[in-house]
Formats: sequence, C-alpha cells, structure tokens
Amino acid sequence: MEIIPGKLLQTIDNPADLKKLSTDKLQQVCQELRQYIIDIVSMHGGHFAASLGVVELTVALHYVYNTPYDKLIWDVGHQAYGHKILTGRRDNFITNRKYKGISGFPKMSESEYDAFGVGHSSTSISAALGIAIAAKYKNENRKSIAVIGDGSIAAGMAFEALNNAGVTDADILIILNDNHISIDPNVGALQKYLSTLVANNNNTQKNINFFEALNIAYFGVEDGHNILHLVATLQKLKNIAGPKLLHITTIKGKGYAQAEKEQTKWHSPGLFDKITGEIYKKTFTTPQPPKYQDVFGNTMIELAEMNEKIMAITPAMPSGSSLKFMMEKMPHRAFDVGISEQHAVTLSAGLATQGIKVFCNIYSTFMQRAYDQVIHDVAIQNLPITFCLDRAGLVGEDGTTHHGCYDIAYFRCIPNMIIAAPMNEQELRNLMYTSQLPTTHHPFVIRYPRGEGVMPEWQTKFEEITIGKGRILQEGKNIAILSLGHVGNFVQAALTTLIKENIQPAHYDMRFAKPLDENLLHQIFQQYQQIITVEDGTVTGGFGSAIIEFMAIHQYHANIKVLGIPDKTIEHGSLKELYEECGYDTNAIIKTIKSFIQ
Amino acid sequence: MEIIPGKLLQTIDNPADLKKLSTDKLQQVCQELRQYIIDIVSMHGGHFAASLGVVELTVALHYVYNTPYDKLIWDVGHQAYGHKILTGRRDNFITNRKYKGISGFPKMSESEYDAFGVGHSSTSISAALGIAIAAKYKNENRKSIAVIGDGSIAAGMAFEALNNAGVTDADILIILNDNHISIDPNVGALQKYLSTLVANNNNTQKNINFFEALNIAYFGVEDGHNILHLVATLQKLKNIAGPKLLHITTIKGKGYAQAEKEQTKWHSPGLFDKITGEIYKKTFTTPQPPKYQDVFGNTMIELAEMNEKIMAITPAMPSGSSLKFMMEKMPHRAFDVGISEQHAVTLSAGLATQGIKVFCNIYSTFMQRAYDQVIHDVAIQNLPITFCLDRAGLVGEDGTTHHGCYDIAYFRCIPNMIIAAPMNEQELRNLMYTSQLPTTHHPFVIRYPRGEGVMPEWQTKFEEITIGKGRILQEGKNIAILSLGHVGNFVQAALTTLIKENIQPAHYDMRFAKPLDENLLHQIFQQYQQIITVEDGTVTGGFGSAIIEFMAIHQYHANIKVLGIPDKTIEHGSLKELYEECGYDTNAIIKTIKSFIQ
Repeated sequence: MEIIPGKLLQTIDNPADLKKLSTDKLQQVCQELRQYIIDIVSMHGGHFAASLGVVELTVALHYVYNTPYDKLIWDVGHQAYGHKILTGRRDNFITNRKYKGISGFPKMSESEYDAFGVGHSSTSISAALGIAIAAKYKNENRKSIAVIGDGSIAAGMAFEALNNAGVTDADILIILNDNHISIDPNVGALQKYLSTLVANNNNTQKNINFFEALNIAYFGVEDGHNILHLVATLQKLKNIAGPKLLHITTIKGKGYAQAEKEQTKWHSPGLFDKITGEIYKKTFTTPQPPKYQDVFGNTMIELAEMNEKIMAITPAMPSGSSLKFMMEKMPHRAFDVGISEQHAVTLSAGLATQGIKVFCNIYSTFMQRAYDQVIHDVAIQNLPITFCLDRAGLVGEDGTTHHGCYDIAYFRCIPNMIIAAPMNEQELRNLMYTSQLPTTHHPFVIRYPRGEGVMPEWQTKFEEITIGKGRILQEGKNIAILSLGHVGNFVQAALTTLIKENIQPAHYDMRFAKPLDENLLHQIFQQYQQIITVEDGTVTGGFGSAIIEFMAIHQYHANIKVLGIPDKTIEHGSLKELYEECGYDTNAIIKTIKSFIQ
Repeated sequence: MEIIPGKLLQTIDNPADLKKLSTDKLQQVCQELRQYIIDIVSMHGGHFAASLGVVELTVALHYVYNTPYDKLIWDVGHQAYGHKILTGRRDNFITNRKYKGISGFPKMSESEYDAFGVGHSSTSISAALGIAIAAKYKNENRKSIAVIGDGSIAAGMAFEALNNAGVTDADILIILNDNHISIDPNVGALQKYLSTLVANNNNTQKNINFFEALNIAYFGVEDGHNILHLVATLQKLKNIAGPKLLHITTIKGKGYAQAEKEQTKWHSPGLFDKITGEIYKKTFTTPQPPKYQDVFGNTMIELAEMNEKIMAITPAMPSGSSLKFMMEKMPHRAFDVGISEQHAVTLSAGLATQGIKVFCNIYSTFMQRAYDQVIHDVAIQNLPITFCLDRAGLVGEDGTTHHGCYDIAYFRCIPNMIIAAPMNEQELRNLMYTSQLPTTHHPFVIRYPRGEGVMPEWQTKFEEITIGKGRILQEGKNIAILSLGHVGNFVQAALTTLIKENIQPAHYDMRFAKPLDENLLHQIFQQYQQIITVEDGTVTGGFGSAIIEFMAIHQYHANIKVLGIPDKTIEHGSLKELYEECGYDTNAIIKTIKSFIQ
C-alpha cells in the first residue's frame, strides 16, 4: 500500500521549501510529518516514539536555521526520522533500515544535512563544539546545534563536553530534550534535578543552576510541542553568541496515544496497526526458541536465588538486556545505573572487591565505552566479574554503529580475561552458571547475539563447563571446522547438507576464544591439514587469529581459512543479508568446504 | 646514605600506632611525614608534589577512620606516598617504583590498606560506591572514602559516578581535594566554578550548588592543611549517613617552597638536592638524542606553520606530551581540554568534519578511555585525524596501569585505521608530516615510546612516507627480522654483535602494523623460512599476529617467532629491566636468532 504524505509535506523536498511557508502553516506541517512517521513506521518498522516527540523541534530547527550550512547534530539519532523526511529523504524513507536503504541513524555519507554520524549516545556536544570552534577559526558565521536527551546528557562524555564548552566562546546551542526517558525511564541524580527545574519552571533557582555553574547560558524551560514559541525562541537564540543551552520538555511518543502511555514498548515496536495500536506478533503452533536476552534475564534470577553473592548491573538497558526481570524481583540486587558504561564497570569492580559476584550486562558495541575500565579496574586486578555482552556480532537493522564486531579482538589482547561464546541457550546458561562459581577467578566475558536462539526447551539444568574446554560435535574426515558461538549452528546446517554429498568435515564448538583448548587444538592440528574457523566477529585479531597464533607458536602448517566479519564497516540490513554479505552463513561455509576439497 | 624517619614516624608501623597518639601530636607527625617524603623522593625519585599536598589529609584519614576495614581510595594515586608510609611500607619505601619493589600507585596485591588499585584518573568514586553498596547489602558498618582532585572529578567517569551516587543511600564520603592542578594546571568550567565556591567560601551559593544539584550533601570549603580541623570534620562526617562530599583546598607541593611555586615541574622532578632544590641533570659532552615527546612538540609547530588547517588537542597532558610548545606559540590552534579523552577524540572528529587537520595526542594507556570514540566517531566515519600515542609500549617505573601494551591490538581490528610506529626521530617527523598531507584520507595512529630517541641531529627535512610501506635496513641470509617501531634499534644492535660471529639475518623496519606492506611481505616469505617479529606491544593480536594472519591468508609456512610483551600484567621497573623480562631486548633477539640457527 502506498503511503502518501500530507499536502504540505508533499511540497517539502528540503528545508528551503519549508522556509517558504508562513509560520501559521507550521502546525499543519507538524501534523503531517507526525502522521507520515506513524504511517511509515507502522508498516515498515523502525524507531518510533522518539521521533514523534521532536516533530515540533525538528520543524522549528529547519525553519529557523540555515541547514546544511548550519550544523545540526541529533544525539543518538533515534529521533531523527522527521529530520530525514524534511531533508530530501521523504520518498526514500520506506527503505529506512533496509539492506542498501537509508540508515536508521543520521549518517554523513548519506546526506549533507547529517552533520555528524550518530548511534551511540552523548557524542553530540563534543562534535558540535568541534564544528563551532572550526567555524570561529575559519571566520564563518556557521551555527552549531546539538539536540540531546536528558538521559544522554547525564553520560560522562557529555559532561566532559559541557565542561569544556563552558570555557570557550564557541557559538554552540545545546538543546536539552527533557522527556524523562531514553529507551527505559531515565535514572540518576541529574535527571531528578532537571525535574525540579521543570516543576518550578526554573523559578526557585535564583542563584545558579547546574548549567550556569558550568558557565553555559541557560534558557528554559520551554514546551517543546509549541511550534510557534519554539520558532520564536530559536530566532532569539540564533543571535546570542557563546555556549548556551535551551531546556525544553517533550513527551516521547507525542501524538500517538499508546506510545505516550507505554513509552518503552513503543520505542521500537515493530510493525503495528496504526488504527488499533495492535502490535503484530507472529503466531506459532509449536514452541519457539526464546531470545538470548530473555535466557539471560531469566537465568539471572535462577542464579541469584541460588547464590546470594550475586548482583547485576545494566547501564540503561533494563529492557534491552532483560535484566528488568531481576530488577523487578530483586530490586536491591539488580540496578540500572543510567547511560554510564564506564561507571557501570568500575562500580562492578568495587563490588567485586567485597566478594560480590557481579553480572554486568553491556551490549558489545557499548562495551567499547568502558574498555579502559575493563583493563584498568578489572583485568589488571583480576577481579572475577562476569560481563554479559548482548548483541555481540552483527546486529542487523541498526547497522554500522551498533554491530558488535570487535569484542573478541579487543578483549583477547588483555591479560586475565576469559572470553566465551555459547552456541545455544543451554550453553549460555551453563557459561553463566560456571562464571559465578567460587572456583572462577578471572573476568569472564560471555558474548551472545541479538535475537532468538535455537532451543524451544531452553530451561535446562545447570552444568559446569570447564573453562577453556571446547567440545567435538562431529568427527570427520580431512577438514575440521572450528566455530565459536552461535555460528556453530550455521556449521551444523552446512554439515547436514554436505552429508548428502558424502562430505563429512569434523566440527568443533570451541566455546572459548581465551583461554584456548590447547589439548583439543593439538589433536585437531595433528589430525587435520585443512582448517576452517567461523565466528560472528572481525577476522582481524579475533578468534580465527587466536587459532592462527596457536599454529605459529606450535609450528603447525595447516591450510586455514578464517570466516567472520571482514575488515571494513558493515552497513545495515537483515541478519540473513549481512551474514551472507560477510561470507559466514551456511552457504558460505559449504562453499568454503567445497573449495578446500577441490 | 640511610634515610631515618622522624621520632614519631619511627613508631608508626600502621594506623593503629597513629591512633595511639593524642591529637596534639598530629602536627608533628605531619611534619615528619612530609620530611620523610622529601628525603626519600629527593634521593630515590618518584612523584613528589602531590603527596606533599595531602600530608594532613592522609594523617587525618588514618587517624579517624578504621582502615583497612574502612576503605580508602586515592584517585590516580600520585598522592598516596604518605598513605603507603603510614600503612606498613615506611622502611620499604626506598624501593618505590623500583623493579620488584613497591608500586608508585596503590595496589590491592601490595597491601590490604590499598582498597582499590589506581593509576588512571577518576575511578575512585565508582569503586568507593561499589564498596559502599556491598557494605550495605552485607549489613556491614564499613565506611567508604574516595579522595579525588578537582582535575579528576571533572572527567566524565567521575560525573557518571556522582550522578549515580546521588540516587543511592550508600554511605560514601567523597573528599574533593581542590588544588587547581593535576600535572598541569586544571582547565574547564567546573574548575572555575569550584574557584568561585572557594572564593566565596560557599556563602553566595545559598540556593543550590553543583553537588547538591546531584543530591550529594556538600561540606566545605575547608583548609586541607589544618590537621586539627580536618580531624574534627572527619569525625563529624563519619556519623552522617548517605552520599556526601567534603570540599577541601590544598596546595600541591605544600611545605617545599620550590614545589609550591613550580608545581608542574615538581610533579615528578627526578632526583634533587633537597637543601638547594637543585634538580640533578646528567651532563653530557656530546649532543644527546631528544625525547620523542619533544620531537612531537617541536614538529607540531613546524607543521602548523606550514599548514594552516592544523590544530592540536591534548587531554590534560600539555607538559607530558610537549604540546605546550605549540599551545604557547599558537594558543588558538592547540588546546588542553582537561582530563577528557572521550571528549578530546570526538571534539577532534567535529573539527575534522570541517576540514581541520587535527593532531590528537593521548598516551597509549589513556587512549583506552576513548576507544569507543575512535571507533564510532572517527573510524566508522573515516575522518583523517592523526592520533599521536605517546608512551606506547612499556613505560618503566609507572608500571602496570600505565604500560601502553595494547594499542596495536585494539586498533588493528578497527576498519579504516592506519597504524604506524617510527623507529627514530626522523621517522616520527616524517610520519607526522605524511599524516597531515591532503592525500591522507584515514585515521592515522602514530605510536612512539616514552623517553629518548636515538638521533642527536633530529631536525631532519620532512619526507613523505608511502602509507603501508616498510623499508629494508639490512639484506641477510636464512633469517628475516621484521620490527615495528623503536625496537628496530634493538635489532640493529643485535645485528652489530652477530656480524662478528658471521651471522647475518635480514632486517626490515615494517613501519606500519596496518596496512601491511604486502609486496614486501611476499618477497620476504618467498625468500625466508625463518622469521622473527619484534614489537613493543602485546604479542596477542598485535603486529606479530598481523604478520601471522598474512601468512595464513597467503599459505606461507615459515617458522615464525613473535617477540613482544607477553600475555600477562607487567609490573614496574626500569625499561631495561622490563624489556629483558619480556624478552625482546637486544640479548633476547640475539638468543632467538641463535636458537633458529641451531
């Protein structure tokens, strides 16, 4: 079904068209833009409630500012759908998040209106400040604007930028989009403080407020859904030099009743009936495998009930990690610490020094934020914390900024680390179980993918896994395949096909990228001259490299082929499309095996 | 010459001994402790001014609190010498920072009084909060105290911890040691704000102050050199529950006049005459090679004079990086952004989007803090920023927390990165020159070591280096040695020795860990069956691994030995001692070559 934009929206191919309209038309533009977002996302999926919340802000910014000369940076970027639609991507927006389509996040290579690529939170102020400093140096009267939520501004990186901006004369406008929610409701002291500013309309803060303490001129609090006021305010701010912050309040999901009510659910709801608000769910006649995140979430409760030393931490991902199950059941033992991966890890380290067994759950891509803390506060001190890395490997539609490609490589080079990846739900449970045993004395990384596993009957009994021990899944001839993690299932599928052609390679699920199962590897390399490794991670420095290093150390000279994510940025698309592109799906494995035989 | 502690200090083997003294003796303890630090550091070296500044605080804390049951965390740890001396390490303190001696930083494995290992800044609040939460969970009346400077508290990580602490009921005391200086003078808006608090003795802040905005009870401003007041204040604070902050002012270098006056110089002065204040310098009759950092600092000015697009950024290391040369000469083009590696990198990225050619100088070990920003904001967007990684490789006396072991491995797995290491000063200059040419389209990492180079005549003419191109330094027979960076000089020294025994391996300075010089490598592997790689970085996933990956991809089957930092934590000591321990100094290279021949 074709989605037709409203009458005014049809005429807006870029912000210049928007600027032709008189201000009394802007309310209608907002209405049509909001409706278009509802129409598109309900039928094509994507992030929803965030963009609804900033429709008026988006229209006001492009109406007042001279984009793309003026630079507009949307922190995280979930909320930038309206921006994309107004800046030349209206008709193309049905390809949002699809393979070869436009990105779900602002992206410099996609449009000159996307001043800075985003995806991870809290980068916008630093980037906008850099742009403003460059403009001043080049004597350009360019404006630089960062739009950042109250969740994102509480992250350390944003604070560093505020602290620096306050001692510059850079012409930067920070718009604080205060809606009390990121994906889950925001937490933290700054968020509470902002609420008091809003509650008192900043009236009681006669003396100095938080941002003024940082030497940043403060304006607000303003209703972020009043388009005419917003336009007037931005026109005023455009002529005020120096670093300044406009505090606006918005409602995430604004204009779509269900989304306003259940904001976490409607952050990224999937396809839905826009009239009834029914979110479509596939129905099945047989039991389906659970999501890995739910296996984690449920297993946490089981383990915490067995072991009173267990606590768990998430930085702002209670829903995404499913730690919310434990947070609801054991609120004193499971915490959301907000968007603060660095703090989350060192807080875990502090707990661990006191004998607490911490499970710290951070998406692989966000763990990059806490890399130093894992090295400096955990690994060097050899504290036995369990790091559960959800969304490890390719993540699909979120694309480049969110793929968890690098964790095996970036953790493998750190001393004391254990790095494991489960092939299925049972393995995930057993690795989690093993990591919390008193005999486990090292930081323990368990990486698992986005999405569903393979075991409808996943609630298996716990069994200890010997650390650094792989397992043989199939004996074979001539060729051995060594897999790490869920991609072992691709190998199994390949073998099922190949057996019909009487080709039977061996298959080992190595389980651990570190420490390696050296005994098993010696057996393998003594027996096989043709080796294939498969991982859902970068081929540069990853699991396959670990195997190659083993070969070099022990002077084995097999032919080896490493399958995984190639050394380039991978765009968005379905997991199926991306696994195929990267060459480690079932077909690619079959092809590689056959190439070895020829 | 033996160093004898003062009469009271002689009696203090641990804090219990200190507690036996009446308060009127504490002033004398402070005096003796300060003198002992002066005596030891003047003769044995180490960090100096920071510990002098907190003598009274150190004595007061151990007098009032029940350490080690109560947990005391010194942020960064430069200032913890007094703490070490009062907690069982008085007589052993002459081994400070020496091989097999005690560490220059608090370290859990060294003493039960060192509640948390430190070295990098801004970790203390997170760790102390974790300890406090654990105490509450275990129903222990344990106190948890973080001592943090006004430089460190401005880093994002500390803010994340404050933001979280403010919504807990954890019994944590944060002592803000406000002395306006880290190694270099502090910068940033928060620091200015703190100054106004101090100037007004917090009197004008009737309404709400920065920390109270974060729901942290605020006490101060107090004179950090008044031991009796400090003791009284801490005794009061000990009985106040919940998160709280005590703001004290101190003078870095207190009690040693020259250090008070020139605080950066006296941060870590080396050996000196404690009477005259003369800092000993070796004198030489011939010109000596410069420090790599000074080559960087001077070359920055030369390049910036040639290329008006160049700007440079340091997060709080103007002296350590020698960027101060350019900051003094071109204050609008070279900035200190404070302890904020994350912001420094994304600020650089913002500048780069506007055509500015940024040199961002961050020590290898501190670059771990900005790992996500390099991936997400620089590499994915392929912005041509130059990252100069000073102190890459082993750093000597600073030890475990400061070694720059991992950068080759953690950057090599990231797409679009160029990773280079100069073998000498000329190479450093040429790499810097090359990185700023308009034809360089990628993020460009240049890693170089702590300390002196090898070229007294270092001010060579700039020459472009082809990216990814190595060079042959010596043709040879049977064995080829591939080195990356300054360790090539160890190889050269080894070859000089071996030629006398008629052993002549080939030597290649590969220059780049990424991209590899594949043409050269094909030549090498076609010619040689015995390969040695040498790097000042981890052997796991590093340069040697890159060579091994190349071998695997192209099915070369040489015997290869990878020399570098082994996969374990390396302690402190002189560089000579540590290179030897790790097995890649000249002798180790000779030994490896000979083992290949036999």
